[in-house]
Amino acid sequence: MALFHVRMDVNIPRDLDPDERAETIAREKAYSQDLQRQGKWVHLWRIAGQYSNISIFDVADPDELNDLLWGLPLFPYMDIVVTPLAKHGSSIK
Amino acid sequence: MALFHVRMDVNIPRDLDPDERAETIAREKAYSQDLQRQGKWVHLWRIAGQYSNISIFDVADPDELNDLLWGLPLFPYMDIVVTPLAKHGSSIK
Amino acid sequence: MALFHVRMDVNIPRDLDPDERAETIAREKAYSQDLQRQGKWVHLWRIAGQYSNISIFDVADPDELNDLLWGLPLFPYMDIVVTPLAKHGSSIK
Amino acid sequence: MALFHVRMDVNIPRDLDPDERAETIAREKAYSQDLQRQGKWVHLWRIAGQYSNISIFDVADPDELNDLLWGLPLFPYMDIVVTPLAKHGSSIK
Amino acid sequence: MALFHVRMDVNIPRDLDPDERAETIAREKAYSQDLQRQGKWVHLWRIAGQYSNISIFDVADPDELNDLLWGLPLFPYMDIVVTPLAKHGSSIK
Amino acid sequence: MALFHVRMDVNIPRDLDPDERAETIAREKAYSQDLQRQGKWVHLWRIAGQYSNISIFDVADPDELNDLLWGLPLFPYMDIVVTPLAKHGSSIK
Amino acid sequence: MALFHVRMDVNIPRDLDPDERAETIAREKAYSQDLQRQGKWVHLWRIAGQYSNISIFDVADPDELNDLLWGLPLFPYMDIVVTPLAKHGSSIK
Amino acid sequence: MALFHVRMDVNIPRDLDPDERAETIAREKAYSQDLQRQGKWVHLWRIAGQYSNISIFDVADPDELNDLLWGLPLFPYMDIVVTPLAKHGSSIK
Amino acid sequence: MALFHVRMDVNIPRDLDPDERAETIAREKAYSQDLQRQGKWVHLWRIAGQYSNISIFDVADPDELNDLLWGLPLFPYMDIVVTPLAKHGSSIK
Amino acid sequence: MALFHVRMDVNIPRDLDPDERAETIAREKAYSQDLQRQGKWVHLWRIAGQYSNISIFDVADPDELNDLLWGLPLFPYMDIVVTPLAKHGSSIK
Repeated sequence: MALFHVRMDVNIPRDLDPDERAETIAREKAYSQDLQRQGKWVHLWRIAGQYSNISIFDVADPDELNDLLWGLPLFPYMDIVVTPLAKHGSSIK
Repeated sequence: MALFHVRMDVNIPRDLDPDERAETIAREKAYSQDLQRQGKWVHLWRIAGQYSNISIFDVADPDELNDLLWGLPLFPYMDIVVTPLAKHGSSIK
Repeated sequence: MALFHVRMDVNIPRDLDPDERAETIAREKAYSQDLQRQGKWVHLWRIAGQYSNISIFDVADPDELNDLLWGLPLFPYMDIVVTPLAKHGSSIK
Repeated sequence: MALFHVRMDVNIPRDLDPDERAETIAREKAYSQDLQRQGKWVHLWRIAGQYSNISIFDVADPDELNDLLWGLPLFPYMDIVVTPLAKHGSSIK
Repeated sequence: MALFHVRMDVNIPRDLDPDERAETIAREKAYSQDLQRQGKWVHLWRIAGQYSNISIFDVADPDELNDLLWGLPLFPYMDIVVTPLAKHGSSIK
Repeated sequence: MALFHVRMDVNIPRDLDPDERAETIAREKAYSQDLQRQGKWVHLWRIAGQYSNISIFDVADPDELNDLLWGLPLFPYMDIVVTPLAKHGSSIK
Repeated sequence: MALFHVRMDVNIPRDLDPDERAETIAREKAYSQDLQRQGKWVHLWRIAGQYSNISIFDVADPDELNDLLWGLPLFPYMDIVVTPLAKHGSSIK
Repeated sequence: MALFHVRMDVNIPRDLDPDERAETIAREKAYSQDLQRQGKWVHLWRIAGQYSNISIFDVADPDELNDLLWGLPLFPYMDIVVTPLAKHGSSIK
Repeated sequence: MALFHVRMDVNIPRDLDPDERAETIAREKAYSQDLQRQGKWVHLWRIAGQYSNISIFDVADPDELNDLLWGLPLFPYMDIVVTPLAKHGSSIK
Repeated sequence: MALFHVRMDVNIPRDLDPDERAETIAREKAYSQDLQRQGKWVHLWRIAGQYSNISIFDVADPDELNDLLWGLPLFPYMDIVVTPLAKHGSSIK
């Protein structure tokens, strides 16, 4: 398995239809929680004061990560930066 | 408790005495593992291909975080950026 | 308690309804002054020549800070950067 | 009086004589505390995890500020950025 | 008195009503020339090839500067950066 | 397998012993060519006019990539940025 | 022949007519695959998590490259950065 | 005479009327060629893969350059950066 | 005549011989004041809190400016950025 | 033939032996003038106020350009950025 650090900055357009907005955010939450339960989206934190999150994904490879991220309901409104992670020699895990 | 995302970029000077270098790195590892065992340094990952890590700290407040980071044996050779984290509404934890 | 330095850059869309604009700015002012009276928003300065402020918050933790900032009536129109602060060894306070 | 937001990033060269280093840091502390007592250096915070501070100065004008900053014993080892501040219309002070 | 270096980058929206545009630019010119005559806006240069200017203001303090800049008719369409200036020891003025 | 785009900027210190320099560069070449023959370092190009390369690695995961990059004889003198790649829907390969 | 590294970041406007959008993307794919079959667009990778690609072109010169890139159906919606590549002395190809 | 290096990045709004767009581009071409024939716009190159050019102007002074650039029919849709050039001691011209 | 805005950031190496340092700074002052008296270096301000200045030069062309700047005794220790200025239509001078 | 825009920023170390410094600069000049006479280094300008130049090369391909740039006697002390150029549709040449 491969670990990736992912930062997502969300910028939903003001003129998005309110129902579509609410529905997209609800789908995003369900999608995220499903991946969390599968053990693929292993951490999800809010950056304090920003509509942004920092996440850790544990997936087979960059292809799977790319598929998961493109599947995000909010993907069209996100700026995403991916950083690959390796095990650290001082980690006790 | 308060969560912080910490990125550390390490740049040890070439002319550091080799024994001091080795001893400092060994102390850094012990220091880090002690904080991990105390549950204060909750995650520690290597950024692939860089002498850098991404860490998550769970501490009382920025004062405690600041004390812990200044105590790092490699602190004089690090660039550190701290980002405060909040619980995310979609996290299942 | 935990101190945070917060910079807010405001960019209200030109096409926002003027009444909504005025009402949002009024609510922002009331919201800010309420937090100031509670001792959570301890300093608030204008950056000269910019629709931006620099603020100091004194809150329990990043979670509370995040809740307060998301509650700002102008939050959707702001870029916010948070920097955690610690006590300085030379401060006489 | 005029308010200025000042960020100072300190970078003391490794090869500075240890006695000179210690003596300079001690003078810096005394200098800073003297200005704090005079009410000119009104706030001084450490940026968590960095050898940096954020300060607020209350001085007559940029000339006085410039003189005070050039007088810092650590001035030769600092990067300094000054931002002028104005009273904010929502501040209750 | 206090000197400030001010850079203003102007970006008037394309869809601004042409009459409002012309009237705003005319008011900007009158406002600027009035401040020049008062000796507060002491220099005003165009950056060659850009809808930008570099200006020097001589005002009482950052509060007055902030009031003057917010009063610019084009203020809503400008990005402004202020740099405080001090007398230079080699200046013959 | 996982693909990664790697940019390496090389900056060998001027005061490195010439023999050590030559020997390190020779080992770097052998190390690189060995990985190329193993099919792990699948592309290697020079950025025109810079002591930099752009490379494509095909490895098991970020851990293997990290091990390979830390093993580069010139690693201490390189700035490295890794970008994970996925298959593109329009690629005919 | 001349090699160029090309990064393309795609940003299709939200208000583009859906049919035009779909048709443009289809033409982009055909155009790309035609150039791949001609051996001019020799590599095409997706940057994981972004609507971006990294490509390698093998063309006669910058003029031909410029013509090919301006011919991309998505060109009006792309930010493109071109880096010229040279053969690397350690490459075994 | 004075030489200036000018980079122009063009970004024509999508919603510009097609006739106005075509007419503006045609006027830009005529304007540019007229200045080229006068010997004031001495070089004009396309940056490969971008709607940008790099140009060299030979004019009396920054005032004339500024007038010529503001006169560009595409000026409202351009970002322009000007760099003044001097004769190089190794140039054989 | 041609106006140029020049920013100079000074960074004198710590290990410069103290006598050479003092002598260079003294020559810099004399050189600057001579150009000021000639009317070529028309303004010289200190950026508050930095070893930097902002200057306005009034010279024949970029060649003369380049010669004057290369002649600065502190030139080897300066980062210099030049911005050409034009007369502003709202200036009353 | 292929055109490339090349910016070179020179930073010769202070501690380079003065004779080696002078000899390297002399070789650089000869090397440059030889390439100019061959028609490969077609333009060479000084950026006013900086130890930098902007050059235009006319070479067979990026490989030749890379060879020529690595052959510069000052290459070890330069930061170089290459931008490929294409013919511009409005150029009259």
